[in-house]
Amino acid sequence: MTPTSPILITMGDPVGIGPEIVAQAFRDGAADGCVVVGDAAVMARAAAVIGWAAPVQPMSSLHDALPQAALPVWQPRALPEGLATLPWGQVQAAAGRAAADSVSTAARAVMGGEGSALVTAPLNKAALAAGGVDFPGHTEMLQTLAGGVPVRMMLANEELRVVLVTIHQSLRSAIDAVTFDAVLQTLRIAHASGHGRRIAVAGLNPHAGEGGLFGDEEQRIIGPAIAAARDEGIDAHGPFAPDTVFMRARRGEFELVVAMTHDHGLIPVKYLGVEQGVNVTLGLPFVRTSPDHGTAFDIAGQGVADASSLKAAIRWARRAIAIPR
Amino acid sequence: MTPTSPILITMGDPVGIGPEIVAQAFRDGAADGCVVVGDAAVMARAAAVIGWAAPVQPMSSLHDALPQAALPVWQPRALPEGLATLPWGQVQAAAGRAAADSVSTAARAVMGGEGSALVTAPLNKAALAAGGVDFPGHTEMLQTLAGGVPVRMMLANEELRVVLVTIHQSLRSAIDAVTFDAVLQTLRIAHASGHGRRIAVAGLNPHAGEGGLFGDEEQRIIGPAIAAARDEGIDAHGPFAPDTVFMRARRGEFELVVAMTHDHGLIPVKYLGVEQGVNVTLGLPFVRTSPDHGTAFDIAGQGVADASSLKAAIRWARRAIAIPR
Repeated sequence: MTPTSPILITMGDPVGIGPEIVAQAFRDGAADGCVVVGDAAVMARAAAVIGWAAPVQPMSSLHDALPQAALPVWQPRALPEGLATLPWGQVQAAAGRAAADSVSTAARAVMGGEGSALVTAPLNKAALAAGGVDFPGHTEMLQTLAGGVPVRMMLANEELRVVLVTIHQSLRSAIDAVTFDAVLQTLRIAHASGHGRRIAVAGLNPHAGEGGLFGDEEQRIIGPAIAAARDEGIDAHGPFAPDTVFMRARRGEFELVVAMTHDHGLIPVKYLGVEQGVNVTLGLPFVRTSPDHGTAFDIAGQGVADASSLKAAIRWARRAIAIPR
Repeated sequence: MTPTSPILITMGDPVGIGPEIVAQAFRDGAADGCVVVGDAAVMARAAAVIGWAAPVQPMSSLHDALPQAALPVWQPRALPEGLATLPWGQVQAAAGRAAADSVSTAARAVMGGEGSALVTAPLNKAALAAGGVDFPGHTEMLQTLAGGVPVRMMLANEELRVVLVTIHQSLRSAIDAVTFDAVLQTLRIAHASGHGRRIAVAGLNPHAGEGGLFGDEEQRIIGPAIAAARDEGIDAHGPFAPDTVFMRARRGEFELVVAMTHDHGLIPVKYLGVEQGVNVTLGLPFVRTSPDHGTAFDIAGQGVADASSLKAAIRWARRAIAIPR
């Protein structure tokens, strides 16, 4: 990539809140220098939904000069006609397919150096499935496009950055998935991300096991993985009691926290409000961020969706691009 | 009890931070109308530690008139001589024994109507064991003194009140302990406590199981227990995704949250700081609160301990006494 390549923002599911929050970000000046990857007519409808008269400007190439006070849209060839006439807020095969095509086109462009980062608006899992897309969401799709590299989800806001060892599985199976390799790999990915050097590792059990009294994963698995990471030069600490480590990180004692389970990590990130929460995929060969919410089909097309998290995702992408590698 | 009975505050382990934070609460006017249950000489040493010259006033009976600008101490007969000469911050059998005797004396007085509530300063688990006390902590001791009633821990601050289904056990065993009966019992105890009517129940799994995709405890256990509670007239809702339910309660959507595990519940309560966190034991036939920290042997006797959580525990006890039953 070149430093001047635009950040590419996918439109998300065309009938969810994605297009209208993307339009808001441009209208409010939060997406200057960015380009939407998606359907021009869908973005024109979204601009109308938020009462913004600025013209959508289709771009034939990402090398075109960016327009001022407009919504620049680079449209993947694969997109069908008529997307902008689909009803809002329903699971539709064509919408899922178009959303996925926009993501893959944008990701390939970023990997090819034509974009500096990827910011993705929300997909709908059911629409993807209806459209014959074999991935449950962005992360898996991007991981495959990038050749199957190991990735981790980081959830972040201005106070806290949490990297998760396990995510979308039952709590019972998540405990089994907390292995030496999974924890060490998470620490390597978190460290390499550049989003923070001093890393706290939360335990799995109450009081981080209280010396083995409340579970032994800290002694058998997490502690040894931290030791191995430290041997590699990673500034990892812990395992700490889960109930206080996030508060300690919030106060500045650590820059990143590695959490074993989805909810240990996400409860504190979301506690003060989901509006500022951002999802950052670590481990990919490019920067990818997204808002920390879904398509919100129940309010799509009404112009009432909150674009805060998407704007934060764009800010985080800019910040991540600037990290020296 | 009579409305004018004093709140009884136990001194805690005599060589931990308990006595000095209790002295601080009296000095700062946060314990007006309360009586310390413990050793008078220990409390005199604690007052000296915080540089407070007010005299310790031993009370021969809880029916005595309360002194002004003094530290009223009601001393259990069982306490030995010399407690105030024990070295600070060490596990000592005599200290553990005296702390436990103060708790049982105070609890019996409250159950006998001579006190309106019990506020307990921290015990040390190892000192209790060294002193031949067969309980790991307050909760189990009080539960036994009250005849073995089922109890639950509520952790609360000014923003959030969380009642826990499981507490001090491994996460793996906690999952097994999330039964229909345990959840329903928790809802009954939470409801009867009067600390809030509208109750949210957090799920166990990510996204509360995502319809069974990430675990089925919500469908098999938690959902049916909520339904049974609602049939009993309890205003219970859920199960909700653990990562957003606490944020929703913080914003006022619910008055109480029932959490399945120690850390799902305690992470959000402690996230903004442990100083204001209070532990309230629900289910006992009397009001009992305590600060949400331990004996802090490493700083005991230096006059630097923070009494905020104890002061909050006293405030919560006053509030709980006022709840109509």
